[in-house]
Amino acid sequence: MFEAIVSASTLGDALDSVSVLVDECKIRLNEDGLAIRAVDPANVGMVDLELDAGAFESYEADGGVIGVNLARLEDIAGMASADDLVHLELDEETRKLHIQMDGLSYTLALIDPDSIRQEPDIPDLDLAAEIVVEGAQLGRGITAADMVSDHIRLRVDPDAAAFFVEAQGDTDDVDLELGAGDLIDLTPGTADSLFSLDYLKDMNKAIPADAEVTVELGEEFPVKLHYELAEGMGKVTYMLAPRIQSD
Amino acid sequence: MFEAIVSASTLGDALDSVSVLVDECKIRLNEDGLAIRAVDPANVGMVDLELDAGAFESYEADGGVIGVNLARLEDIAGMASADDLVHLELDEETRKLHIQMDGLSYTLALIDPDSIRQEPDIPDLDLAAEIVVEGAQLGRGITAADMVSDHIRLRVDPDAAAFFVEAQGDTDDVDLELGAGDLIDLTPGTADSLFSLDYLKDMNKAIPADAEVTVELGEEFPVKLHYELAEGMGKVTYMLAPRIQSD
Amino acid sequence: MFEAIVSASTLGDALDSVSVLVDECKIRLNEDGLAIRAVDPANVGMVDLELDAGAFESYEADGGVIGVNLARLEDIAGMASADDLVHLELDEETRKLHIQMDGLSYTLALIDPDSIRQEPDIPDLDLAAEIVVEGAQLGRGITAADMVSDHIRLRVDPDAAAFFVEAQGDTDDVDLELGAGDLIDLTPGTADSLFSLDYLKDMNKAIPADAEVTVELGEEFPVKLHYELAEGMGKVTYMLAPRIQSD
Repeated sequence: MFEAIVSASTLGDALDSVSVLVDECKIRLNEDGLAIRAVDPANVGMVDLELDAGAFESYEADGGVIGVNLARLEDIAGMASADDLVHLELDEETRKLHIQMDGLSYTLALIDPDSIRQEPDIPDLDLAAEIVVEGAQLGRGITAADMVSDHIRLRVDPDAAAFFVEAQGDTDDVDLELGAGDLIDLTPGTADSLFSLDYLKDMNKAIPADAEVTVELGEEFPVKLHYELAEGMGKVTYMLAPRIQSD
Repeated sequence: MFEAIVSASTLGDALDSVSVLVDECKIRLNEDGLAIRAVDPANVGMVDLELDAGAFESYEADGGVIGVNLARLEDIAGMASADDLVHLELDEETRKLHIQMDGLSYTLALIDPDSIRQEPDIPDLDLAAEIVVEGAQLGRGITAADMVSDHIRLRVDPDAAAFFVEAQGDTDDVDLELGAGDLIDLTPGTADSLFSLDYLKDMNKAIPADAEVTVELGEEFPVKLHYELAEGMGKVTYMLAPRIQSD
Repeated sequence: MFEAIVSASTLGDALDSVSVLVDECKIRLNEDGLAIRAVDPANVGMVDLELDAGAFESYEADGGVIGVNLARLEDIAGMASADDLVHLELDEETRKLHIQMDGLSYTLALIDPDSIRQEPDIPDLDLAAEIVVEGAQLGRGITAADMVSDHIRLRVDPDAAAFFVEAQGDTDDVDLELGAGDLIDLTPGTADSLFSLDYLKDMNKAIPADAEVTVELGEEFPVKLHYELAEGMGKVTYMLAPRIQSD
């Protein structure tokens, strides 16, 4: 069984974090909250979303799994005002999700979870550097990099105690240096990796401008981005595979 | 003869109510106000607009008929700020309409009224139920229905004293229930009809969100929608033919 | 050498005035300020921009010429907030322009000035009439004219002491009369010329709505439009060739 009440804005933010990577996903209806894990079709970007029962006005579930069309579910959540409460209830027999808000009922046909791409294992990585930065700053670097290239280089200079967002185009270069004064926190370490800008742009769309984003970065290794939703009751982790740096 | 002065917002609202259905129309320049009746090319949706002389700052006419291109006339009215006054004057000899606002003059060539589709008779119908609802609520039901289907069902449940806006898609359903607390007024009666969503979406575009819309509804019968313009000095009636309900 | 600091809004306004006509241009880095002159590929519209050293927070140059891609430079300036300061520095050896703002560095490859269309000579013309008008009023006439025609007629009636913006379409006409009360100033004279609306629309995009635009107008002669940037420390002049009036 599953029955929950949640604010439209929390539901929307949570769904957005996943829908930038995949169109369909499995939602695990655990006793202590929702969990979604998904990987894009090219196996380059992964997302791990946890939304604790405490992020809901009320929450009851006993461990099932449902498959949903994310765009559809986002459209419905988008019908509500940010403060509206959305009531979700699973009909186990018909395999439909009943969604209600302020007089409006929507019956969403679910997707067979077995038909959805398998949930990825998100590996524990021992990454040398950790940067904590405002979503807006990260977004600024991504936007600038996008002006000159398809790739973006994230780099920590332990000596300078600074985080660098760089892009090298055919003729032009971009370089954003974020020092101690621009960052929320920095654990220096040798870290320098190149990523596909397309993925990072998509992830950045879901990250609120005022979110504290924790970036775990290594040497030619995947990057992990973490941020919180719903006043800490929700957690999003993105992992993005590196591109080979050619010199 | 015809000469009138009207606020740009009143003129714009009046024209919008007709232009959602047709591109050209006849305007009857009656002594006591303007009147437009039009039916869309497929004979499914009709509009009847009356704008009393009292909706104008000044109004003088003696009963002629002119044919106009609505998009053109809307564009011109759109050049003014909402509070600006628009001066309209018919040149009988050249068959042109002179439109003036704050130094700007526009000379609009009229269309031969005989070349425009005939004005429809809007039948008197004895419809069992009458619902009075805010434009915004109706719009909400239409937007939600549009997520799942091309058709929309409007229904009154006399026992529940409620108005239902419903749509049935291939996999998903939508259902908006508006009870006594959500409606301005309800005269219950047996009423249940299906309509093309395209037409209702177009009509809804012209209906202000804060308008009181009176919905007259029957059993597999056309629906009539009424609302007022210009602080009651203007009246719009839409009539929309039903689709056959197949079960 | 060239090194300067300027507000992002001043830089953006200056670039916009040129980019509406051409994609690439030469920038003259004079000792007392920047200067750009450009003519569109069809030789119909010209622009002359002067941005005095006083429009900059700091300015140092010794007379070189650089070639730039305007869209690229505008995109970079657009990354800054209006009040941000942009630091520009020319690297003579690599022929690159270093652009910095709040931690973000952009290295812009320059274009060989010799590969850019030659700068036009903007002729001194003795035009009979001079009109000073708000950018917004001129824009209003241009928008209205665009509803009916591809051409726009600018005309002064010395007797009426009024400036006329007119357009004649196949069926409809537009006529904006700006009298003494609507104009900032008028030096009457015999002046009546026809112009391509496309060019005037582009120029109008760059002219701020609250700018005082000085229009110099003659009889079947080019029109000159002047307005100021950066609180008078910048000056833009447009010149537009007339179209032949056929009667």
